[in-house]
Amino acid sequence: MGRKLDRIGDARLHDRVVTAEEAASWIQDGMTLGLSGFTRAGDVKAVPTALIHRAEAGEKLKVNVFTGASLGSDIDKMMADAGIIHKRLPFQADPTMRKKINAGEHLFVDHHLSHTAEMVRANVLEKVDYAVLEAISITDDGQVIPTTSIGNSLVFAEHAKSIIIEINTSQSQLLEGVHDLYSPNQQGEREPIPLQKVADRIGTIGIPIDIEKVRGIVFTNQPDSPSTIVQPDHETEIMASHLLDFLRKEIAEGRLTEQLAPLQSGIGSVANAVLHGMLQSEFKNLEVYSEVLQDAVFDLIDAGKVSVASCCSITLSEQKMQNVFSRFDAYRDKIIMRPQEISNHPEIIRRLGIIAINTALEADIYGNVNSTHVCGTKMMNGIGGSGDFARNARLSIFVTKSIAKAGDISSIVPFVSHVDHTEHDVDVLVTEQGYADLRGLAPRERVPLIIENCAHPMYKEQLWEYYRDALQGGGQTPHNLEKAFSWHINFAKNGTMRELIEQK
Amino acid sequence: MGRKLDRIGDARLHDRVVTAEEAASWIQDGMTLGLSGFTRAGDVKAVPTALIHRAEAGEKLKVNVFTGASLGSDIDKMMADAGIIHKRLPFQADPTMRKKINAGEHLFVDHHLSHTAEMVRANVLEKVDYAVLEAISITDDGQVIPTTSIGNSLVFAEHAKSIIIEINTSQSQLLEGVHDLYSPNQQGEREPIPLQKVADRIGTIGIPIDIEKVRGIVFTNQPDSPSTIVQPDHETEIMASHLLDFLRKEIAEGRLTEQLAPLQSGIGSVANAVLHGMLQSEFKNLEVYSEVLQDAVFDLIDAGKVSVASCCSITLSEQKMQNVFSRFDAYRDKIIMRPQEISNHPEIIRRLGIIAINTALEADIYGNVNSTHVCGTKMMNGIGGSGDFARNARLSIFVTKSIAKAGDISSIVPFVSHVDHTEHDVDVLVTEQGYADLRGLAPRERVPLIIENCAHPMYKEQLWEYYRDALQGGGQTPHNLEKAFSWHINFAKNGTMRELIEQK
Repeated sequence: MGRKLDRIGDARLHDRVVTAEEAASWIQDGMTLGLSGFTRAGDVKAVPTALIHRAEAGEKLKVNVFTGASLGSDIDKMMADAGIIHKRLPFQADPTMRKKINAGEHLFVDHHLSHTAEMVRANVLEKVDYAVLEAISITDDGQVIPTTSIGNSLVFAEHAKSIIIEINTSQSQLLEGVHDLYSPNQQGEREPIPLQKVADRIGTIGIPIDIEKVRGIVFTNQPDSPSTIVQPDHETEIMASHLLDFLRKEIAEGRLTEQLAPLQSGIGSVANAVLHGMLQSEFKNLEVYSEVLQDAVFDLIDAGKVSVASCCSITLSEQKMQNVFSRFDAYRDKIIMRPQEISNHPEIIRRLGIIAINTALEADIYGNVNSTHVCGTKMMNGIGGSGDFARNARLSIFVTKSIAKAGDISSIVPFVSHVDHTEHDVDVLVTEQGYADLRGLAPRERVPLIIENCAHPMYKEQLWEYYRDALQGGGQTPHNLEKAFSWHINFAKNGTMRELIEQK
Repeated sequence: MGRKLDRIGDARLHDRVVTAEEAASWIQDGMTLGLSGFTRAGDVKAVPTALIHRAEAGEKLKVNVFTGASLGSDIDKMMADAGIIHKRLPFQADPTMRKKINAGEHLFVDHHLSHTAEMVRANVLEKVDYAVLEAISITDDGQVIPTTSIGNSLVFAEHAKSIIIEINTSQSQLLEGVHDLYSPNQQGEREPIPLQKVADRIGTIGIPIDIEKVRGIVFTNQPDSPSTIVQPDHETEIMASHLLDFLRKEIAEGRLTEQLAPLQSGIGSVANAVLHGMLQSEFKNLEVYSEVLQDAVFDLIDAGKVSVASCCSITLSEQKMQNVFSRFDAYRDKIIMRPQEISNHPEIIRRLGIIAINTALEADIYGNVNSTHVCGTKMMNGIGGSGDFARNARLSIFVTKSIAKAGDISSIVPFVSHVDHTEHDVDVLVTEQGYADLRGLAPRERVPLIIENCAHPMYKEQLWEYYRDALQGGGQTPHNLEKAFSWHINFAKNGTMRELIEQK
């Protein structure tokens, strides 16, 4: 215990060390928890597990669980299985939890990731009873140093009634000094966020806390879950090369330089492939201003391609995790971790002129994008930060493979079955077929570009057929509402979006 | 001419005075024009009219027309009738032009109103050949003082190859000093916009111009077109009272004070009625941070209810126009006019924590809003600033009457036929039936609120029927895609959204 207490600089907190079981015992039915954790990184592990064990032992217990984004360590899965969730927000990515959400067994509120902090601050959501935050340590002056993510930990700590801290001794202590915690005042009473360059530091290295609110400190040593990112395949590499061609066109036309502009890339294999593609490119002195740093960013730093990377979470594959944290000294002066409110803030995104690369589930012939709902009804993960970035970016790029399920699903459809990003917020669409640059185009100008450049050949004629028919009715955005969802309906009934001969 | 030349302070420009016909003769087929004008105010009148006359006389002529928003003086109508438009952006509101757009006779690009300036600056759109700007005067140091709107005039002047100025002697010279022109640098090279309070002045009183680019100056004396706003009726008054009740609830719950927060209200009769409703309310020291100031804002200033109002355009009814400008001294220290990029800027909207009130054409049971496309295809006016505000506001409120066409159309539908504002960006929905506060609610929680509080009684059971059926399929957002647009299809075929007995 002596060595462990070295992690708690403020001696007034030394007597608050408890077991995870004891800390979890304070949490009661009906409470709201604010947990650290963003895309499997920096999540609290011990207290939620102890809480789940209570439910598994038969106790009737429902809580609201607010986080940064998705949790690792199977916490979301175990919470869903144990049935202890009443309401979950703002994001999740667990198959079991997804199933429960879609079955209506618990509520899920799908937030823009920059919004949750404003709602907590403005007292719009349920009051957070316990903030439960993973930390490396607590400084002498009572600052909590986060681990591999910040997420919403700052705003949870500020507004929760009580705080429980999990000090995780498996996380690298070299992370201290990498975080930059900045909290805006209430709306209407705030100053401009003083961040002008990706590298700017504007806050403190830890979360300033009211130590009276700290009820317990738990020690753990469980590592983060590694990321589940699929490595680039042939198709994602082709998509990456189309996207890099588009960026080259922008340079040729004088709108960008080889330094490009600060890059945001959503989590996923295509985004990862795009960054990988930059390894062999002429682009240089790149800056990253994103939510999550995945493996590729560290490869780009190693290659001298990326000079600085801002994020709110570091989520790596198992091998990369070991590699990065065993020599974190090589990276720490190039990385800044921020609260998700700041990494995703419209003010900063618009000011920096970010190039945003996010993944679409499906897009329609006019450029509307669905990034959350399978066939319009079943939640996949959530909108995440894609809306924060797409809406205010210099360039809002969406990537998707043109087909799924061996061609039974076309990702380019007549009318998306759910809209997360409207035609106004989608600048460029990229598939393995090519890219469509939609900027400044009227809806009728976008259609041929999207069909010819992005749709899979097996669906092109079918899309043209829909559009020619829709044109009969006229309009700024021609549609035949009787057939708008016919592709999705066909898939539900016949297992394919392809038109059958007898249906013609 | 002598007295007129007093309006041109910079003597180097005295020899550039020409007739509207001469100025219009410089405009050639295929060019792109950047015109002043926003919601019928401060539009250029003489040069476009002279250009239209050329087409009416038989000349083959097509131009791209970029503006702030809609034009007055029937310019949009006459341009559409004369067939001189190739591409029009970012907004229009003229019935004749609307018809041509929906017939596919010319292109229309429907922009977020804060985006056009960024796209011009970033050289994404067609290069502006002529900026044609209405002014009161030109100062000694070559600043162009705008009239009753600013719109995109600043960015057009900065980036156009040449400039034509219409000095309108019918506009009040007391407007000088009211404008506040601020232009951000290129993205990535800009500082925070230094505006922290609605009343802050951060720029110049006129548009700084390169006088070498000024090719001609035309004198006119044609007044602005009066607004066409319908005065409050019984239903809009009821809607206003529901909205005020919601704001009172927010005060009671400690989230707002009687000063509320800076108000944005979209153009339209309901928004005007809401502001009228505040005349008799307990709210005080109100601030307005909006695009357009309509009649009601001046009544609120007269009543001592509004202390300051920021806008990018002043659009008044005929009587109010005379009343306001005949004693503009009483208002000028309470009004600040800004470029639409600043009035609608996400950075400012989020910082100030604006309460945004905009009009929906239709909303669905999950809170998605269509504000542009009738039955999903026909353009009404355009998204305007509603997306700029809704996406970043403290409170994003949408208002609509629950039915239209004597009940044959329900404004609350199973699935909106076009999405301009997603469920993520709609906080509160108001109809004459009541309001639904959707903040922090999962989709399945929103449905009963929207149906019970907002839908018209004649459609409630029909909406419940749709939802109960959709629930069979499960999902985060239950839908039956086979019936999702059945209401719109029914309307197209049978002239009503009401279910007929034989259809059941």
